[in-house]
Order: sequence, then C-alpha cells, then structure tokens
Amino acid sequence: MELDFAPLDREEALDAAGTEGLVDAMRYSLLAGGKRIRPVLALATCQALGFPPEELLPTAAALELIHTYSLIHDDLPAMDDDELRRGRPTCHVVYGEDTAILAGDALFAEAMRLVCERQGGGPGVQVGILSELARASGVNGMVGGQFLDLREAGRESAQALRRVHLLKTGRLIAAAVRCALIYATPPPRVDLALRVFARELGLLFQIVDDILDASGSEEAMGKPVGADARKGKVTYVTFYGLERARSLAGESHARAAELIAAVPGPVDDLEALTELIYARQS
Amino acid sequence: MELDFAPLDREEALDAAGTEGLVDAMRYSLLAGGKRIRPVLALATCQALGFPPEELLPTAAALELIHTYSLIHDDLPAMDDDELRRGRPTCHVVYGEDTAILAGDALFAEAMRLVCERQGGGPGVQVGILSELARASGVNGMVGGQFLDLREAGRESAQALRRVHLLKTGRLIAAAVRCALIYATPPPRVDLALRVFARELGLLFQIVDDILDASGSEEAMGKPVGADARKGKVTYVTFYGLERARSLAGESHARAAELIAAVPGPVDDLEALTELIYARQS
Repeated sequence: MELDFAPLDREEALDAAGTEGLVDAMRYSLLAGGKRIRPVLALATCQALGFPPEELLPTAAALELIHTYSLIHDDLPAMDDDELRRGRPTCHVVYGEDTAILAGDALFAEAMRLVCERQGGGPGVQVGILSELARASGVNGMVGGQFLDLREAGRESAQALRRVHLLKTGRLIAAAVRCALIYATPPPRVDLALRVFARELGLLFQIVDDILDASGSEEAMGKPVGADARKGKVTYVTFYGLERARSLAGESHARAAELIAAVPGPVDDLEALTELIYARQS
Repeated sequence: MELDFAPLDREEALDAAGTEGLVDAMRYSLLAGGKRIRPVLALATCQALGFPPEELLPTAAALELIHTYSLIHDDLPAMDDDELRRGRPTCHVVYGEDTAILAGDALFAEAMRLVCERQGGGPGVQVGILSELARASGVNGMVGGQFLDLREAGRESAQALRRVHLLKTGRLIAAAVRCALIYATPPPRVDLALRVFARELGLLFQIVDDILDASGSEEAMGKPVGADARKGKVTYVTFYGLERARSLAGESHARAAELIAAVPGPVDDLEALTELIYARQS
C-alpha cells in the first residue's frame, strides 16, 4: 500500500500545489526507520484472530502515522527538546519548528483519512476503529500522557508513574490490539484476554524504554542516552533505580507472556513480538 | 449537548486523572467566544436541506473544535506568534507553549471522537463526515494552507494567493457545508450548487479577514490590527491594496449571494450568514 498523501481530485490537487515541502517533512519522519511496533502488533493480532493480516493494513499504517506525529511534537523545543532520533536530526531541526508542528498535525489528519478511505470491513468497523484511534490519542490517551509526563506527574507515587506510562505510550500500543479486535470481533473471552495483554505490553514497552534510555547503547539507540535523567524526567529508572526497574520489566514481561499464552489461536507472532519488546536493545 | 471531554469508562477515568490542566487549556480557547461561523454554517445548511439542524450538532461542534485547535497552533511563537485573540491572551501565553501544542492536538482528537460517538445518521454518514473533516484539515486543506501562508506562497501571483486563502480558511468553511450535504444527501444539482457556494463563502471570509486586519477596530477585533502587514504576511490588502481588496470582497460577496439565491429550499439562514460574513466588523 502506497502512502502518498495525494490529493483526491483535480480541485484538491490544484489547491494543494506548493505543499510538497510539508509532505517532505512528513515523509522524513515517517520513513526514518523505527521498529514499527504498533503496526506489526495490529497485524499480528489480526492474524491471531484468524484473519489475513493485510486486511488491517490501512489501520496499521494509521497507527504508525499517529505515532510519528506524536514523536515530531514531543521532540519540539517547547516539549522534550530532542535534536536526534533514530540516528538522524529531528524534524524541527531539519525543517524548522513551524513546519514540524504542521507536519505532526497533518500526519494525524492523514491517519484518520486513511482509515476512512482505505480500511475494509464496512463503515461500522471503520467508525469503531476511528473512535478507538481518537480515544487512544486524545486527552484521555497519548496526548494526556505526554501532558502528565511534562508536568512530572509520575513523581507523586508508583501508581501515578504507572498511569503516565500507560497513557503516554501504552494507550496507542493497546489501540493496535484493540483495532484488530474491532475488526475481527472475537468472542468476549478472547476479546478481554487480548485487551488485558495489550495493556500489559504497553506498560512493558515503556519500562524497557526507560531502561534503554539509562543504560542502552547510543549507537543502537540512534540518540543520546541518559537524556531522561538530564531533563529531570520521571522514569522507572529514576523512580526505582536501574536494578529494580529491570526486575519490574521482568515481572511485566512474565505477565504479558502468560496472558498471551492463554489466548487460543495462532498467537506465535504476538509471542515473538512480546519477546522482542522485552529483549530489544533500541 | 455538553462537551465534557470526559473519559468513557472507569479504566479510562482512572488513567486520565491529572489531565485536568490540559482540559482547562482546551476549554479556555474553545470557550473564548468567537463567531462560531463554521458550526452555524453547518446547521444552516442542514436546515436549508430540510433537516432539523440539531441533528448535525455533534459535527457542528467538531468543526469548532478543529477550528479552535488550528487557532491555538497558529498563534504559537514558532508560527504567527500572536499573544492576543478575541480580547484575551492566547493559549500558550496563559498555559505555556507545551500545553498549548498538546491542547490543539487533543482538540483535534476529541473532534473526531465526537463524530464517531455522537453523530447520528448511521456509520456510513459518520465515515463520510470524518473523511471530509480529515481531508479539510490535512495537508491538502487547512494545515497545507497554513504551511503555504508561512512560506509566503501567496506572493507569487494572484492565483497563488487565492489558493492559500482557499486552503487555509476556505477549506474548513467549505467542510461545514459539505458535512451537511453528506448528512442530507440532496439531489446532485443542489449538492453541486452548495459546494460552489461554500467555496466562494470561504474565500469571501478570508478576504474580509484581511481587510479587517488592516483597517478594523482593535476593540471590536480583540487583537492588534495591522499584524499581518507587520509580519510581512501576504494578504489581499498587502497584495492588492485596501481599495482593490474591498472591491474584490464585494465581487466575491455578490457571487456568493447569487449562488445561494439559486438553491431551492429554506436558505434564509444561509443568506443571512453570507451577509454577516461580508458585513462583519470583527
């Protein structure tokens, strides 16, 4: 599936002439590499539920567009002020802050458009997926989590820190699984099991992220390590210390592995992904 | 209809505790007054097509949420750097740049959620409206227009300037009409006539905006006048001069009035709105 952000008719094409520079900025960040965890997770869940994964491709791409938009905005000087990501200068360093803000905004709109115009399964399924994406990325999801993170809400308690992680990173990861559930509508028992698994996986992902930021290899990460601590960010490592954070990651991994093993169906890819998220070095 | 941005279930409510400060910023800008042109236009079009306007209320609200998000982002220091809007300090002045960026992001997500979860007419209509909103606000719409404006693309030619205006402001105004058309599905002839009208109305709105920025009353506008010229922005006034801009507004108004008069049905409110947009002082 080609992601061309192309205008849809002649009128739109004429109007939009000259926005190529904005599309360049969107592509720059979207095609900068990255692990593609969210789309892969959506496709693997689709497969586990007995559907050909390619049927969920537009939604999988939308998840990556939303993730990319959030990275561009999080990296802005007014937010986390990061200049390097995935081994390359961040979007605002290359294209300027104004274009970076707009590139993020446009990626979110294109993500929604993609589901509206390419996702199969009928309009009922599309609305369900769009609703899930909007909830996962809004004030009660990813954006709310970033707000809490900037306000250092995690400093208050272990529970508060867990909550920040569940929103900031976990919610969109959970959405990857939930979108597949909306598409495949499995029996309630399977649905619930996969939702609980998804929540745990999202938490695990962010704990490992915190550990890698504190102790990973700069070369593998493609960005400076130790940035969280330097910025005074509250992470599992700054809160619990590295050793305890590692054991909490181990416990979260064990729970996730146990949860997914209990789901009937071809869950091999979901199991492999769980291992990858736990053992990753970048 | 209450816009509470509330979490939808107990799990979400627990996770989102602490994001009240972000909701404050969203409300601050959303409830700062403003003319509500886009929602009123959507409702008036719905009525002109023979449907009770309140049936389109969630979409009308979504249009205002998207408009508000675009104002918050456009006002940012990295963009237009405006400190006053509607007589009050802009969102980033009150809540900080980071929160303002996130408030804009979250308003867009909530707009889409609103249509997913509250708009009637069935999922087919919902997907149509969501698609229209995504197209109108994305790279081939509002955000693309803001990019062109920042790059001063309008300096090149009269046609280029018209295009910037059609995207930056016109596209979301057109979407207000188009969403009502998606809801009401009138005969093709009426559909086309209203689309052409909507495009003209969007252009008219922005020409009048340019004129007011150059010659309006600061008290009525609630922000400094002459800001466009000071920032080197390309507007109908800087491009054509005030007198010619006024006559172009007059021509655009005449076209819009003629177009709407030719539409069958109760178009009184649409006619009144056209006059309001032309004659407004703020």
